[in-house]
Amino acid sequence: MNSVITLTTDFGADDAYVAAMKGVILSTNPEVNIVDITHSVEPQNVYQAAFILGYTYRYFPRKTVHVAVVDPGVGSERRGVILKTPSALFVAPDNGILSYVIDELSSAKGSVAQYSPDQDLVTLGKGFEVVAITEPRFWRHPTSTTFHGRDIFAPVAATLTLDISPYELGEKITSLHVFPILKPLVDYQSKLTGTVLYVDHFGNLITNIKKSDLPGKDIPIEVAGRLIQGITDYYAEGEDLMAIIGSSGYLEIALKDGSAADFLNIEIGDEIKVTLEEED
Amino acid sequence: MNSVITLTTDFGADDAYVAAMKGVILSTNPEVNIVDITHSVEPQNVYQAAFILGYTYRYFPRKTVHVAVVDPGVGSERRGVILKTPSALFVAPDNGILSYVIDELSSAKGSVAQYSPDQDLVTLGKGFEVVAITEPRFWRHPTSTTFHGRDIFAPVAATLTLDISPYELGEKITSLHVFPILKPLVDYQSKLTGTVLYVDHFGNLITNIKKSDLPGKDIPIEVAGRLIQGITDYYAEGEDLMAIIGSSGYLEIALKDGSAADFLNIEIGDEIKVTLEEED
Amino acid sequence: MNSVITLTTDFGADDAYVAAMKGVILSTNPEVNIVDITHSVEPQNVYQAAFILGYTYRYFPRKTVHVAVVDPGVGSERRGVILKTPSALFVAPDNGILSYVIDELSSAKGSVAQYSPDQDLVTLGKGFEVVAITEPRFWRHPTSTTFHGRDIFAPVAATLTLDISPYELGEKITSLHVFPILKPLVDYQSKLTGTVLYVDHFGNLITNIKKSDLPGKDIPIEVAGRLIQGITDYYAEGEDLMAIIGSSGYLEIALKDGSAADFLNIEIGDEIKVTLEEED
Repeated sequence: MNSVITLTTDFGADDAYVAAMKGVILSTNPEVNIVDITHSVEPQNVYQAAFILGYTYRYFPRKTVHVAVVDPGVGSERRGVILKTPSALFVAPDNGILSYVIDELSSAKGSVAQYSPDQDLVTLGKGFEVVAITEPRFWRHPTSTTFHGRDIFAPVAATLTLDISPYELGEKITSLHVFPILKPLVDYQSKLTGTVLYVDHFGNLITNIKKSDLPGKDIPIEVAGRLIQGITDYYAEGEDLMAIIGSSGYLEIALKDGSAADFLNIEIGDEIKVTLEEED
Repeated sequence: MNSVITLTTDFGADDAYVAAMKGVILSTNPEVNIVDITHSVEPQNVYQAAFILGYTYRYFPRKTVHVAVVDPGVGSERRGVILKTPSALFVAPDNGILSYVIDELSSAKGSVAQYSPDQDLVTLGKGFEVVAITEPRFWRHPTSTTFHGRDIFAPVAATLTLDISPYELGEKITSLHVFPILKPLVDYQSKLTGTVLYVDHFGNLITNIKKSDLPGKDIPIEVAGRLIQGITDYYAEGEDLMAIIGSSGYLEIALKDGSAADFLNIEIGDEIKVTLEEED
Repeated sequence: MNSVITLTTDFGADDAYVAAMKGVILSTNPEVNIVDITHSVEPQNVYQAAFILGYTYRYFPRKTVHVAVVDPGVGSERRGVILKTPSALFVAPDNGILSYVIDELSSAKGSVAQYSPDQDLVTLGKGFEVVAITEPRFWRHPTSTTFHGRDIFAPVAATLTLDISPYELGEKITSLHVFPILKPLVDYQSKLTGTVLYVDHFGNLITNIKKSDLPGKDIPIEVAGRLIQGITDYYAEGEDLMAIIGSSGYLEIALKDGSAADFLNIEIGDEIKVTLEEED
């Protein structure tokens, strides 16, 4: 049995909101192994949560149920949804928090997803089940208007680990809200401009440039007015500031024995430029 | 089997004290699902721990064992106790940390509890088992004088998940130490004065005023010299400063896209006033 | 079944690196009970991680697999190793992170370990299995050069909980890297000089002086120019600044209702002196 449910929220580690969700999950299925992905998403930063979830869910066993609750619209008309893919299930508000998951599925599987930029809606194809959570008999009652994580998403996720079909929990829908994924851009001089998407605990800068975007390792990289010559294989090899393909497959900027973010005074959203020509 | 034990402490998230407790629990019963409620209680703030535990335990499955260790008197004459109620078990020092649990049980069940204000003692009636932990053969040895969480409360809690009766672990007693629960007060002008009991990660102010204390939603609320007109249904509906019935059932003050605590410069213990007459 | 794996890292609590490791572990063995020892080791502080692990592992059930990843040399030539002792298994980089574990095993068991100070290598004797992790078929692929915690140590640890012998995962070796353990020193005046090894969440100063190093309780203790007269039995007994034998068995300096570290302005590495003669 032993199902896994993961939690990604902006609730912080200090209050008991996360524990309340876990209690509700275990009340429905006491056999679940609950794993915290993070509760340190910046309050109401749906984009950041989407990025972290998109990076992390792939490391979990098949059929893991991933619950993501960064939910500024809780209680309003925004829908709660279930997304079932061939490899995992997701339970979340329909506010774009699944954008990176869907982006990766789309690129990996070809044309399973169709994106309508006008509507910020993506239509999902074969192999996916998408459900609007509308069936209150699986919820906790009384259901609050302020904490659907505890009263709706937690019991719905726990119910899904009991091998109940998503379709029993609500109505089949075909599209989900997404936001545009920030991709690196190539200019007429063959320079690739990427963006810092995330700064980790070590001060490493994680960009949106993938290994596959690059022609090789001997390329110049510009960040915050500094030039880094070539990509290093691992942290211990680097000297001072270095560029590296991080564990998530994205180009990272790191500082030996220090925080690149502090050293360069860089923040999320800042640019990084790569010349797409290997040096001799 | 799969029992659940929760932990509420002031040990912080950085040291290995919590892990030591978990190791001891799993040494007695490797099947336990251990859930952290919080380890961020302010050092030695028994009142805060009592409030968090009283709010959170109700979301857990029946027969969950809740261990609470905020224990400035560890090693002294203060007793360790087990409280078994119809819905849950508690293992803690007898220092008031179960006050909110007992308060809620009392109001929910009628006269199960009798309070002696002179002694700060509450006498528990039918349906409850109360035990002073005195039986060292269930403890970890050598038993330290400074960390009963690890050496006494953890192994006792794990033993309780093995369906051993509380009475085997110590001596039956009939009363527990509690502190007075701060209730909102109504004055001669029909104004209700409540208190901010908790400030959460989002900066929301959680008061001791319950939904059932209020005549309706169209009431004026005063906090830090500001007037809030009526209670909002959910966060996204509010503009700027708002009053809302939070997920715990208490009146909360929140700020749209910000921290009400920072904005109002309010702390735990500060007052909030509600006029108990609905406007037309 | 229900195996236990513990994690000790410097990854912090905010990023999803720890979650990625947990996902990989559960992908290999979904029945594992994963316990965080701490993720708040100071970045790249192998010594601190070694101390915490040495203190904590003893509280866990036999056959627990302890994974420790503070790994500045990740991707370089440093080896990954498995150490199996009669009571536990350890999976870690071979960078000294097991020094306190090995030190305690050596003192506890007599001559199981032989230390070569010139090489910073310890040779382990009977009752131990030591393996260099070299067998890639148990790893996650593609294997990154920057995150062996996720790609090598996590799947190796999970494999070990399936009762696969360490020898299947790599090559038998006989020695491990260790660093010198800082021991207290006695001078010609019978004064014992110890060192502050750790400052905990409460601001208690944990030293490297053990209870067994001391002749009794009525001894003068000097710290930061202040004199503490004798050792107190438990925190509530003390007044202001006190010396106490902490739950780890080491001499600690604590401050009643406050942080001794802040009050004394003391840091890790600072000295503490004890006169080794009981007063009358």
